[in-house]
Amino acid sequence: MTERTATVCIVGLGLMGGSLALALREARGASQRILGVARRPDVLDAARAAGAIDEGTSDLAAGVAGADTVVLATPVRTILRMLPEIGRYARPGALVLDLGSSKAQICAAMAEMPEGLQPVGGHPMCGKEVAGFAAADAGLFRERPFVLCPLPRTAPEALERAIRLARDTRARPIVLDPAAHDRAVAGISHLPFAAAAALVNCVAAADDPVAWSLASSGFRDTSRLASSDVEMMLDILLTNREAVVDWLARYAAQLDQLRSAIAAGNEANLRNLLAAAQHARSRLTV
Amino acid sequence: MTERTATVCIVGLGLMGGSLALALREARGASQRILGVARRPDVLDAARAAGAIDEGTSDLAAGVAGADTVVLATPVRTILRMLPEIGRYARPGALVLDLGSSKAQICAAMAEMPEGLQPVGGHPMCGKEVAGFAAADAGLFRERPFVLCPLPRTAPEALERAIRLARDTRARPIVLDPAAHDRAVAGISHLPFAAAAALVNCVAAADDPVAWSLASSGFRDTSRLASSDVEMMLDILLTNREAVVDWLARYAAQLDQLRSAIAAGNEANLRNLLAAAQHARSRLTV
Repeated sequence: MTERTATVCIVGLGLMGGSLALALREARGASQRILGVARRPDVLDAARAAGAIDEGTSDLAAGVAGADTVVLATPVRTILRMLPEIGRYARPGALVLDLGSSKAQICAAMAEMPEGLQPVGGHPMCGKEVAGFAAADAGLFRERPFVLCPLPRTAPEALERAIRLARDTRARPIVLDPAAHDRAVAGISHLPFAAAAALVNCVAAADDPVAWSLASSGFRDTSRLASSDVEMMLDILLTNREAVVDWLARYAAQLDQLRSAIAAGNEANLRNLLAAAQHARSRLTV
Repeated sequence: MTERTATVCIVGLGLMGGSLALALREARGASQRILGVARRPDVLDAARAAGAIDEGTSDLAAGVAGADTVVLATPVRTILRMLPEIGRYARPGALVLDLGSSKAQICAAMAEMPEGLQPVGGHPMCGKEVAGFAAADAGLFRERPFVLCPLPRTAPEALERAIRLARDTRARPIVLDPAAHDRAVAGISHLPFAAAAALVNCVAAADDPVAWSLASSGFRDTSRLASSDVEMMLDILLTNREAVVDWLARYAAQLDQLRSAIAAGNEANLRNLLAAAQHARSRLTV
């Protein structure tokens, strides 16, 4: 198999799968065949019309059977459900990569796949709060970390292929252990989502039209993640439960420190907490 | 006194005061004299060089004495400290307006000013996480709500002058009771700040370099307010203590609901919470 004739099958053509198709097209042109699998014919039509895929099908078995690389770009629990099927249909030697936001459960399910396959867990650290192919963007992955979690059984050249694919999207590949990934993203991605959702529910519960009317860019940005796709986030939170619950407990403790300092009018303590947050935030380069 | 010869004295030429000066200049040109009061000569020089003010002084008494309108654009507790002084120096009939982010304590202090003055509490609902005259922007107030809190003693024509000033900045003036304002902004402004600061402190405390390196636009936006000026936020939180503590308790309860649903794997309950947040967030028009 040469790079030139390689076929990539992307299962799921939403924001992530659609963006991947566009990015690979931009990187490799016609030298790589891109096959899209989606349930909805209108999504396949849109992806074809945009030049993101060469061919589209709603038949998972047919799509997967012809591919050197299979990329699963659906919500996490759909990936978990599909992996055994992929195992039955995929070509021996095929790289099986996913783009799901939690990795431990997926990598565990990948370990059960037939021996001839080459599974690698994947998670590009990017997104938008809008879903669907219409939001897909060839530049979505650019300069962003693209986490790769090879299994102990994954052949080095299969990991190399996954790294090349990540580089084709102009992302920065980072190889990580699934558990380390899940702990880290629970803190910097799943916790912020929960914080945003709770903030919106808190203000909504107060049912104060004045409050909504005064909301400014601060509320807008802090609450933005609450607009995320519900089914996608449900899958993420429920497949990374332990780490998320742990971070939520630590977050509650931090909020409690702030609340105590404010309630007591403890200015020195409050200043330290706010200054520490300001300082730590300044380290963020994204 | 005609509009043409009116003198506005702006005390504090940081982000808010500097932006106000630029916005009034844009609205009224040379037909309104703008006098700036700031401690630092370099700030006065910068404001003069930018054409934001006609004259600058670090002498509060001298600045205030010549003005038909005095606008206090300093942190909240500095406003509280200055109000008695302003009361001694301001011309009879002068409109005294402030731009502080909490209103109950300021309006209470305004009630103690000499009878001849016309105090109105003010709060333009806009900001940036950067401070100082260098960040000032004539368009900062455009289309944003500009809350005005007249006192029972404030003459209707003084409130009219405050409304005109707000309109000159292209903001949308909204007349509100100080307590209603403070409750509302505690929810949509002070709580989001606390949520962002606690989020950053939570991730910083975990001391996981992997987590920081994976942070994406979601973490960036949710944590943005943690970069706010510490002294400004300290003043706001400590002068709106009761409302902020109350919202923090309600926020903790919302987070606890999320945590329980995730920990129990209660999918139906979790879906309802996330869908409610997504729906409520879609009402936001800012």
